[in-house]
Amino acid sequence: MGEKKGVVLSGITAGKTAICTVGREGKGLHYRGYAIEDLASKATYEQVAYLLLNGELPNKSQLEDFIQRLNRSRSLPEKLRAMLQSIPADTHPMDVLRTGCSLLGCLEPEKSISEQHKIAERLLACFPSMLLYWYQFHRTGKPIDTKTTEHTIAGDFLYLLHGKSPTDTQRRALDASLILYAEHEFNASTFTARLISSTASDFYSAITGAIGALRGALHGGANEGAMELINRYHTADEAEKGILDSLTKKEKLLGFGHPVYTIIDPRSDIIKGWSKKLADEVNDKRLYPVSERIESVMMREKKLFPNLDFYAASAYHFLGVPTAMFTPLFVIARTAGWSAHIFEQRSDNKIIRPGAEYTGPEPRAFPS
Amino acid sequence: MGEKKGVVLSGITAGKTAICTVGREGKGLHYRGYAIEDLASKATYEQVAYLLLNGELPNKSQLEDFIQRLNRSRSLPEKLRAMLQSIPADTHPMDVLRTGCSLLGCLEPEKSISEQHKIAERLLACFPSMLLYWYQFHRTGKPIDTKTTEHTIAGDFLYLLHGKSPTDTQRRALDASLILYAEHEFNASTFTARLISSTASDFYSAITGAIGALRGALHGGANEGAMELINRYHTADEAEKGILDSLTKKEKLLGFGHPVYTIIDPRSDIIKGWSKKLADEVNDKRLYPVSERIESVMMREKKLFPNLDFYAASAYHFLGVPTAMFTPLFVIARTAGWSAHIFEQRSDNKIIRPGAEYTGPEPRAFPS
Repeated sequence: MGEKKGVVLSGITAGKTAICTVGREGKGLHYRGYAIEDLASKATYEQVAYLLLNGELPNKSQLEDFIQRLNRSRSLPEKLRAMLQSIPADTHPMDVLRTGCSLLGCLEPEKSISEQHKIAERLLACFPSMLLYWYQFHRTGKPIDTKTTEHTIAGDFLYLLHGKSPTDTQRRALDASLILYAEHEFNASTFTARLISSTASDFYSAITGAIGALRGALHGGANEGAMELINRYHTADEAEKGILDSLTKKEKLLGFGHPVYTIIDPRSDIIKGWSKKLADEVNDKRLYPVSERIESVMMREKKLFPNLDFYAASAYHFLGVPTAMFTPLFVIARTAGWSAHIFEQRSDNKIIRPGAEYTGPEPRAFPS
Repeated sequence: MGEKKGVVLSGITAGKTAICTVGREGKGLHYRGYAIEDLASKATYEQVAYLLLNGELPNKSQLEDFIQRLNRSRSLPEKLRAMLQSIPADTHPMDVLRTGCSLLGCLEPEKSISEQHKIAERLLACFPSMLLYWYQFHRTGKPIDTKTTEHTIAGDFLYLLHGKSPTDTQRRALDASLILYAEHEFNASTFTARLISSTASDFYSAITGAIGALRGALHGGANEGAMELINRYHTADEAEKGILDSLTKKEKLLGFGHPVYTIIDPRSDIIKGWSKKLADEVNDKRLYPVSERIESVMMREKKLFPNLDFYAASAYHFLGVPTAMFTPLFVIARTAGWSAHIFEQRSDNKIIRPGAEYTGPEPRAFPS
């Protein structure tokens, strides 16, 4: 990985990792040695989460046990439900997850490092419950039961969102997107989790901080920006005109380029395939063609490729996911990667403490 | 500042700052050009907080306005009070502040960057209220009124803790300690706040993450460890014997040495002076002499100097502050520095995204 302009600490090694390689030769992505293309087409999110957390893929009984533990960890403590009821309906859902995670750290604190795997699984399982309990309470005025008959995190999320089981295509599309979002080496939110862990703080502090970092428009928040972009246009031709206009005005367009990849984001074509399948299922004649045209204009005019966020936006939209929940879905997925990095940081910990270039006033006397 | 062994990114520049220099020639500390010795003896915490947040010391009317704004910002919203009541009594107070800060971000969200100064002042003013509302509710079973007649943050904290006005020495001792803890360049919690801000996230996310980082035993949590250390011994002679024994066993002793200072922590002698004054006021014959002896043994045997945390522990103890509140006091003080760094990061923002050294498996085929 080379240095990237406009990115601080780009190319500077801030630690060792055995979890992931990203952007080797400008394009590849591997989790624990497995190519993202294989994982997205041959594995489930639960297998990938297990792989990230434990270093190896699960065998059949390990996977069944893992899924059962996740299913048992979905319910929310009463005090957390009460707080979710009290958080205003117009709150950013990332703030809801950040606060819910932090409160869970008060209610079910990490008493020793031996609990870290249990807590990682707890958070993986209950973030969908947290988000949708809050959402549905404010939408309907009634608390929901967060127990569903769905066995996967993707299915559970869609059931809680729509109040019914999703189609197989929907379930599998969301599952694949969670795999794509699950891990990405030392990105800003993962580095936040490692930085907080490096002070020997607790597991919840690290995840709470990571959620806060992911919330930013330059990080996880970009998929919401991509949705806003494609939603501006009614036809592909209108999109072409609009994008050319934005480029003339040097407007920043979200969903394109990447701080690490230089040639292509390997996740983009995978999520594009799912976006296309879902577009066909909902008979979309607008957002998908608009997206494709924006992609080709950006490549032609700026040599910029779409990143994962760009086609994730339309895919999530076709799944009926409100735009404000795009980044929370990223949280649900990335909790696997964050957790693996916390384990790794803790296993050979040194505090992270960079230096700074001083540009302020030289020593001066205090006024008498 | 040179590289320090065992510290990741030590000596690597992760950004520019005009706020603080630390450890130039191994020992000095300046906030915006003013020496810490001058600030601790000639300024109040409110003046220092204003200096950090605004770049220059306030004149008389600016200071009065600032203090009045802080005093008006102390009260807690009803939903926050309800949540504080529901957080268990045995929760770590750092988890309480982390969650309280995050919830405040839901109840009083940052709608635009123009609100950042107001939010910094709000957090500075209401962290003591948050901490002590929760503490007193669980100690007495009754909610307290967080309005006090004290005009300073130090006085307000001590009033809320003890239910009465502190002595001048007490007020001034705590005030000086807040000045010493207010800012320290790119330490792990401040760097967390900058890292989260670098994704264009909101103010509360950055402070919430910083609290999580400060919580760790290798960072803010060290002052609690120092208290545990000095509390082991009944006499100076017993301390000498115990410390020699610990050193033989290569036990890690908290409160000594520093990732940045190599010669001396300039804050240590200042807080030591206050610890001595308070020891005299409470007629202590044990903790202060024990602390002094530990200091001299560590210097003689290991050439290690005490850092700020070491004498802060006894000083806070003499002020009647429960040990679990030592790190929360650090939060209250450091909120000024964190906020100044968030302003600065935002003013010339680039995302922070380091690289990693990969040590995991090479590409492998997905099992069929």
